[in-house]
Amino acid sequence: MIKTDILIIGAGPTGLFTVFEAGLLKLKCHIIDALAQPGGQLAEIYPKKPIYDIPGFPEVGAGELVDNLLEQGKQFQPGFTLGERAETIEKQEDGSFIVTTNKGTQHHAPVVAIAGGLGSFEPRKPVIPNIHEFEDKGVAYMIKDPEVYRDKKVVIAGGGDSALDWSIYLADIAKEVTLIHRRNEFRGALDSVEKVRELKMLGKINLVTPAEVVGLGGVEELKEVVVERNEEQFSIEADAFIPLFGLSPKLGPISNWGLEIEKNAIKVDNALDYQTNIPGVFAIGDVNTYPGKLKLILCGFHEATMMCQSAYKIINPGKRYVMKYTTVSGIDGFDGSRKEAEKAVVQAID
Amino acid sequence: MIKTDILIIGAGPTGLFTVFEAGLLKLKCHIIDALAQPGGQLAEIYPKKPIYDIPGFPEVGAGELVDNLLEQGKQFQPGFTLGERAETIEKQEDGSFIVTTNKGTQHHAPVVAIAGGLGSFEPRKPVIPNIHEFEDKGVAYMIKDPEVYRDKKVVIAGGGDSALDWSIYLADIAKEVTLIHRRNEFRGALDSVEKVRELKMLGKINLVTPAEVVGLGGVEELKEVVVERNEEQFSIEADAFIPLFGLSPKLGPISNWGLEIEKNAIKVDNALDYQTNIPGVFAIGDVNTYPGKLKLILCGFHEATMMCQSAYKIINPGKRYVMKYTTVSGIDGFDGSRKEAEKAVVQAID
Repeated sequence: MIKTDILIIGAGPTGLFTVFEAGLLKLKCHIIDALAQPGGQLAEIYPKKPIYDIPGFPEVGAGELVDNLLEQGKQFQPGFTLGERAETIEKQEDGSFIVTTNKGTQHHAPVVAIAGGLGSFEPRKPVIPNIHEFEDKGVAYMIKDPEVYRDKKVVIAGGGDSALDWSIYLADIAKEVTLIHRRNEFRGALDSVEKVRELKMLGKINLVTPAEVVGLGGVEELKEVVVERNEEQFSIEADAFIPLFGLSPKLGPISNWGLEIEKNAIKVDNALDYQTNIPGVFAIGDVNTYPGKLKLILCGFHEATMMCQSAYKIINPGKRYVMKYTTVSGIDGFDGSRKEAEKAVVQAID
Repeated sequence: MIKTDILIIGAGPTGLFTVFEAGLLKLKCHIIDALAQPGGQLAEIYPKKPIYDIPGFPEVGAGELVDNLLEQGKQFQPGFTLGERAETIEKQEDGSFIVTTNKGTQHHAPVVAIAGGLGSFEPRKPVIPNIHEFEDKGVAYMIKDPEVYRDKKVVIAGGGDSALDWSIYLADIAKEVTLIHRRNEFRGALDSVEKVRELKMLGKINLVTPAEVVGLGGVEELKEVVVERNEEQFSIEADAFIPLFGLSPKLGPISNWGLEIEKNAIKVDNALDYQTNIPGVFAIGDVNTYPGKLKLILCGFHEATMMCQSAYKIINPGKRYVMKYTTVSGIDGFDGSRKEAEKAVVQAID
């Protein structure tokens, strides 16, 4: 059982900044996220894109902002449960919570902060009648470990950056890579499009367009995909079929936690501390809703900060907290590190 | 008469970021500030000090943050009335406001956003009976134009960075610089303390410690200061006396605007848009108060952003605003500039 002060659900920018603000109050955090790496959408969907509305950054790359937030919080040593989805929550007699993931990992904390963004990102699946039968038996919707495909015959479907980039990457590893897209035109970074063109010329990627995978065949394991092009069907031998049609966010299991939900978001008390209808459970960032709510990263930062104050009171009942400015008081990390402004000297001049 | 959409009072970080958020909504801003340069406390009090709790910056210099915020907003071409203090506000029949400064400059806007921080910074004055008689006749509490002191006999009082730094600066300009401090020890950057020691050795700064200025003499203009050291009094010829005892914030004239004030701050509706009891007048950043208020820069950023949404509705009644993400839609400056993320190419691979 993992124990912490604030259990954060979601490792997006709001969740990551919570680690820092909690740390200033000497509260320890642990973060659960369904994705394999921290950063949420910023890391998974648009790491190379610029954001223009983070205060103090005329422009910042989404991936760079994630790196900065990780760096800012790292002296407070957050724990991470990554690649697992928070599935159930159970209130304990003492008011604390146990949150269990889809893989059975249990977390215990007096305060839960849901910073789940638009929800956990689930892959969009193509409509192929028997596709479910082949899941984990050749069919995968995201690539966790590319080595799995070494010397295999791989069919990738999709027309965006993921399909292009993984085709390029696997061209060196797999025995055979076929890229199938329902249009002739791909939509992605210029570099990637050109690289795929080059690999096609070299015979390292088979390109099949405009075409769609309409069927899958095999006994126990995937053996072939059935492709339709210009109203004609043919089959391609395949050990793996990887449709990369993007991710779509779903609030998911959190919607069964007894929280008040409105427009696919969690209602909170924005007049005080972004607490939900369950005392001790807060919702911050894009996952919450209240009158006038704006789904902006900078609003999540504020919400996280306000929430931490109430978390402090729950965790330290009766104790008074006096806010200190970081410029004046510096920062003491849980790892023993200290950051502080250079002190003025006090010196006589003789 | 200066006309704008949102008249911002206070050029600190919250006021500066308002320019950016308003610009995204195509609203123009004008800022009034009592200090001579933008940045508020950050620029005036601690420009070289680090701040550790701005989200996304593990560490940022206060002056650097101000520069970044100016850069972030500059394509929305804010106007500035600097070195003047907002003195009076008059509500017009159409609901708009005219704000007049202590120097008589008039500003007209449908929305006023008070981002006044802890108030306007007023110099701390020493207790010398007739000091008021010599104000602007040799006595000054801040240095606006150092050239005024060329070839003059200058007496500076104080023991901190301002006193040290201006003594150093004026040593090259004035005929004579005397630095008086009530203790032997100065408190400031090591560099400055050492430079003053060096200039004292070279005879370019007269140091008088531990001593205090207890009287001023002259007819019409300042001619001498009376100094007390070790219970002995003596006088020093002086054309100028500049006590640099720091700045102290005062809410000032704003407290007479009919706003609800609590603990030296303006009460606002934090459940919606940080509006004050006067419709159309908002208070954002350190100047406001509400349950749980934290005087943090990052909270000011959120408050400014929420406030701009209501300003939009006041200025564009009945018009619906659809929020766009800067990463997706880019930014169109009022100066004709455009910032946007690199677009994906859409290209067939042949």
